[in-house]
This record gives sequence, C-alpha cells and structure tokens, in this order.
Amino acid sequence: MEYDGTYFCGWQRQISDESAIFPGSNRIASTQCCNDTTQYSGVPPALNSVSSVPSVQGTIEKALKKITSHRILVEGAGRTDAGVHATNQVAHFDLPSGIKPEKLQLGLNFYLQPFCAAIVKLEEVAPTFHARFSAKARQYEYHIVNRPAPLTIRKNRAWHVSVPLDISIMQKAAGAFVGCHNFNSFRAAECQSANPIKTIDSFEILLLDGEIIGKVQAKSFLHNQVRIMMGTLVLMGKRKISSEIIPELLKAEDRSAAGPTAPAYGLYLTGVLY
Amino acid sequence: MEYDGTYFCGWQRQISDESAIFPGSNRIASTQCCNDTTQYSGVPPALNSVSSVPSVQGTIEKALKKITSHRILVEGAGRTDAGVHATNQVAHFDLPSGIKPEKLQLGLNFYLQPFCAAIVKLEEVAPTFHARFSAKARQYEYHIVNRPAPLTIRKNRAWHVSVPLDISIMQKAAGAFVGCHNFNSFRAAECQSANPIKTIDSFEILLLDGEIIGKVQAKSFLHNQVRIMMGTLVLMGKRKISSEIIPELLKAEDRSAAGPTAPAYGLYLTGVLY
Repeated sequence: MEYDGTYFCGWQRQISDESAIFPGSNRIASTQCCNDTTQYSGVPPALNSVSSVPSVQGTIEKALKKITSHRILVEGAGRTDAGVHATNQVAHFDLPSGIKPEKLQLGLNFYLQPFCAAIVKLEEVAPTFHARFSAKARQYEYHIVNRPAPLTIRKNRAWHVSVPLDISIMQKAAGAFVGCHNFNSFRAAECQSANPIKTIDSFEILLLDGEIIGKVQAKSFLHNQVRIMMGTLVLMGKRKISSEIIPELLKAEDRSAAGPTAPAYGLYLTGVLY
Repeated sequence: MEYDGTYFCGWQRQISDESAIFPGSNRIASTQCCNDTTQYSGVPPALNSVSSVPSVQGTIEKALKKITSHRILVEGAGRTDAGVHATNQVAHFDLPSGIKPEKLQLGLNFYLQPFCAAIVKLEEVAPTFHARFSAKARQYEYHIVNRPAPLTIRKNRAWHVSVPLDISIMQKAAGAFVGCHNFNSFRAAECQSANPIKTIDSFEILLLDGEIIGKVQAKSFLHNQVRIMMGTLVLMGKRKISSEIIPELLKAEDRSAAGPTAPAYGLYLTGVLY
C-alpha cells in the first residue's frame, strides 16, 4: 500500500483508533471526535493521549470494520513514524469470510481515499504468510533537495538543505554503514529493540532529478536508524565532521556520538522483500 | 521560479491582487480580505470577480511592493492556469533602485514561501530581455498515473486514469501533432489568441518511474492546448477513438472534434528557452 505520511501520526494504531474500532473495550472511553481530549476517570494517562491525527493501521482497521462488521487486526511489515511516507508498505490480515480481493480493495480504497492512503495491490496469501515476520528485507529511500530556495512542489516530500552538500563525500561515507554493526549510536532513545545489532545490505547515495537520494536496505532497522544515518551523512556533506569517522561513531554505542535525526518527511518505505 | 499550482488561481494577476498592490486605483474598491466579495457600485461586474485564491503574478508583485515600496509589474514567460504547476517559470521586472539580486531573492522567497512558490534563481539581465517576448520555446510536461488505486503522494500532482492505457498507441499518435498546424480544435473556447496556427517542435510520451509523461515543446501554445492534446491522446490510449485521426481532428478546426481537456493538476511548465 501507499500513503502520504503528512496526514498520519504514523503506522501504529493509537488508543483513539482502538476505542473507535472496539467501542465495547473498557480500556478507554469511546470518543466520537478525535479532537475531544476530555479526560475520563479510570484511564491510565499513557492510554489517554488521544491524537487528532489518525494512524495508518487504525484507518485500515476502521475501514475493514465498516466493510466486514468484524474486528480485524492489520499487521504491517514496518512501523513508519508520523510524516514518513510509503510507496510500498505491505500488510496482512485474516478475513473471517470470503470477500473477493478485488471487491475488498475497492471498498478499502473508498474509505482510505480521504486520508491519502491506498491499497495498490491486494491478494490472497498462504495462512503462514506474515507481513512482518516473513519479510526478508526492507528498503527505504531518503530524499533531500539541496538548494538555497525553499521547497514548493516537494514540500513535506523531501528534506530541504540550503547549505551546499558535497555528494561525493556522502557517497563514500555511506559505505561504512554496510555490514553487521552495533547501531546503538544510530537509534532513537525510545527505541524498544532488545538487540542493537543490525546488518545493512546496501546503502547508496544517488543524484536523481536534482535530488540527493539515500537508498538503503536491511532485514530490519532500529527506530529512527535511517534518519540518524542520513542526518550524520548530511553533517559530513557539509564538511562539519570528517567522513572517515563512521566506524568511531558506531564504536561509541552512544546516540550523542552520531548526527541529528533527519526530518521524517524525507523518508519513504519503498519496498519489502519476502 | 517554481510553484505548486494547487494553491493559486493561476499565473495571471487578478483584480483583487491589483487593488491590494495599487490601493489608490479607482478601478476597484480595495478589499482587505480576499474573501470579502461585497459588491461595490460603479465597478464593472467582470472586474469585480474577487477571487479568494491568489495569483502567482499578484503574489510576487505584492512581495516586491513590501520589499521596495514600489509598484513593480512582473511579466511571466507563460500564463499557467489554476492548478497548473511550474518547475521552471521565468519572469522579469524592472527595479527602480539597485537592490542586490541575492538579497532580493531572499526577500522574495521570505514572502513567497507561505504560498508554495519560490524564486530558484534571480539574476540581472539586459534591459532588452523580455520574459515573454524573448522566449524561443516553452516546454511542458503532463503526468498521468495509470492504475486502479487512487492517488496518495501524487494527489494534485498527476492525473489519475484508472482504466488501462495502451502507451504504445499514445506514443505513435503524439507524433501527428508535431509540425505546423491549425490548432483550432485544440484550444479553449475562451482562448484569446488571434492566430490558431502553432508549431509543435517535439511531443514525446515516456514511461518514467511508473508514470506516463507527455513532454511537449513549442515556441508558444494556445489556451489549454497541451491539456486538450493530452485528453485526446488518453482517449486513444483507452482505444475509444482511433489513433490515426489526429490529422482529421486538426482539419475539423472545431473544439468539439477533439477529446476532453485533461485536468490542470497534471500539467507542469518545465522550461522556457531563450
């Protein structure tokens, strides 16, 4: 599926989505309007952070509820953050009855269209298929427009870096991320993964149609890993830090060693391999 | 310059812009708010169609007024309609005093940024240069996404055609537009050009990154000419009309002979040659 991350709080279902899908749930009182942030007693504060921006997962689950009248849980291949786009997200769900895929796709797209999300392809898979656990690799692209003038058509679609970047420096540096490393320096403080060791299959920096594009593939990534790697490469492209120090930054195993987290709106989930 | 046509009523200055730039003008009473559509006596109805959506030309002229305190008229290479984008529009204006180009560009972009328009390059030119009359050719691109699923990231950026198109038919047919022809069948009813004879330098249909792109170049175009040519090619791609009949459609010299006008939001002014 494809979505414009601008209009979502991210992939993951929020408590507000859940209350709408499971109105009988006693985990949170039902809120008809997302903007209704009235505090209900008995609800733990963490569960009561009602967001006015929908999640992708919750939006599909709501659409499935409308179509099938069933509570159907959707599993995605990867959780994208607020603002992050997807051109090829993959998700699966189990249907209780035999709705034809073509009919279901039309129905889902009818409900998803106002949210700027669409099911591009829908097909029946083996019961053993799992969007997340069957995935062999995830592919991401990070887009940068490097020029003094502000963005117009590419606003919310690419990171605007106004200071000139040396792409050849970034291209050489990116190679140091490839392979198996401890990426503790390159993950968000709130990252919940127990294991910071990840293997980057490939990481290329390209210049395409006037944009600098980082293309990266791995079996899986840590939270914000691609954005922190890109933020670090941009510091190198600006010649603010040496392009030789990626092995040192990895060795530090400390978030403060690496560069800033690049903005979410430049990132695209472009493929999931099975 | 570059702009996202979604947020403009088109290139051309509107009466509402003019009243804001020239408040002393007695052509129309000044309206502080664009949404104020109060009718003022003595104003011809045609001049009183106050639009709530700004024009590109008027927006630049307002920015120039704020920066220089002068009434400066901006001349563009081509008038784009509401919704039509530009990646390379060219415009010129005469400055009364010697503001440095870099400083002026920064100032203009400061005022243009909220409107999703930007001056990508600004330079001093010879006094004989005229953005419109010195132009030797204009280049346009028309983008189509051809798939059943609705658009998300490309919404307002490309025409969504859900019925399968035969690109090879469109590619062959487009060639028939190249050369010097009477394009009376391919211009809007409201087109004000005295001469419907135009010469198309080149017209290619490409498949790039999953989008069908029509690339066309001519010294100048009639009103809606590119969009009507594209609308006609899409009819041919759908096999609704023969791809051989472009010479006949041209010969008819009648708007009703040609296909529909393709939507504005698929069209991009991509270059002006001098």
